[in-house]
Amino acid sequence: MTVDEPDEMAEQHEPDTVARRGRWRTGERSRRRILDAARALFAERGYDRATVRRIAATAQVDPAMVYYFFETKSRLFTEALALPVNPAEEVAAELSGGVDGLGERIVRHFLDVWDRAPTVEPMLALLRSAPTDERSAAMFTGYIEQEIIARIATVVPEPARLRAELVGSHLMGLLLARHVLRIEPLASTSPDTVATWMGPTLQRYLTDPAPAPDPTA
Amino acid sequence: MTVDEPDEMAEQHEPDTVARRGRWRTGERSRRRILDAARALFAERGYDRATVRRIAATAQVDPAMVYYFFETKSRLFTEALALPVNPAEEVAAELSGGVDGLGERIVRHFLDVWDRAPTVEPMLALLRSAPTDERSAAMFTGYIEQEIIARIATVVPEPARLRAELVGSHLMGLLLARHVLRIEPLASTSPDTVATWMGPTLQRYLTDPAPAPDPTA
Repeated sequence: MTVDEPDEMAEQHEPDTVARRGRWRTGERSRRRILDAARALFAERGYDRATVRRIAATAQVDPAMVYYFFETKSRLFTEALALPVNPAEEVAAELSGGVDGLGERIVRHFLDVWDRAPTVEPMLALLRSAPTDERSAAMFTGYIEQEIIARIATVVPEPARLRAELVGSHLMGLLLARHVLRIEPLASTSPDTVATWMGPTLQRYLTDPAPAPDPTA
Repeated sequence: MTVDEPDEMAEQHEPDTVARRGRWRTGERSRRRILDAARALFAERGYDRATVRRIAATAQVDPAMVYYFFETKSRLFTEALALPVNPAEEVAAELSGGVDGLGERIVRHFLDVWDRAPTVEPMLALLRSAPTDERSAAMFTGYIEQEIIARIATVVPEPARLRAELVGSHLMGLLLARHVLRIEPLASTSPDTVATWMGPTLQRYLTDPAPAPDPTA
């Protein structure tokens, strides 16, 4: 795709482009400049400190245009990194169903998304860069903490963030074993079976009483 | 890198040899050749198919010398990849304590090892290469399946390998969240606290009755 060839997503964002070819092309260019600026600033400053205002300034557009094209910062992040889904939106959707059965819903949804994902490559590019580059780790970590962990933490008891991270770490490990390393039989076990094993575990992390402090500690 | 061309890593393995002479140097050279050959063959053929016999042939030594220096294939793998510990030996030690409380022992030991590890870098080098290189994935996967999962599976009920992998995937996720991405508060939560949360989960995976098949499936 070149700058003169509109892609589908851009068409959705700006419908009456046929009649105004000049302006459309300008819009598509702006959109791409925003994505470039976002990628650079997320990597350079981390998710938290790469503000929409600054991304807009770097892309030489008005902040309103960033929201016009991407609606939320989390979606801008998702598109800049070419993730198959916006985890923040997915999590919000799951949480809207309440805390009962949340563990199993989360794992089912997670399996559904990643089993259908055309590739795990974008996520792996992050993983690959994170350890060698503190800033890449900050980019990823800031997003997870702010858009995923913090949301889950609003609906579960204390220690809410720890509970949410135990869930998150288990899901990351599942992704690694099933889709990256493809360890058998986990890689080809049906989503239903994985969900019946993991669902109750995630639910316990989310809502069971906190364990008593370790007596040997 | 080919087996004939020592790389930088190989250089690091050799301390100042300048003052040293004779048999010691010959032994040290053989040892280094074995490590080079092992690295190349594990990457090229995967853990399972890189036999000690073949590694020895590539290094131009007798297979007995491989065992003399490294005792087991899993330890050769550990040293070739500069891992901080030999997970196979660790697992064997944990399993010798029986299945009661195994979940908590495993997580405590895992935290102890990785919290003390000088760096997670060698493990990450594997992760980084795995997704782009099928052979690297096979190298890592073969080791995990053969030396870790298969051992745990000998002491737990069916589906034994799935149980072992659920445990393993959770631990991999913990490593990622705590040591690679350093997501707070999980990254700085005390090992005791993490163990009291995760221990029962791992124990359930290992020894609880298998969940009933999902009725909606």
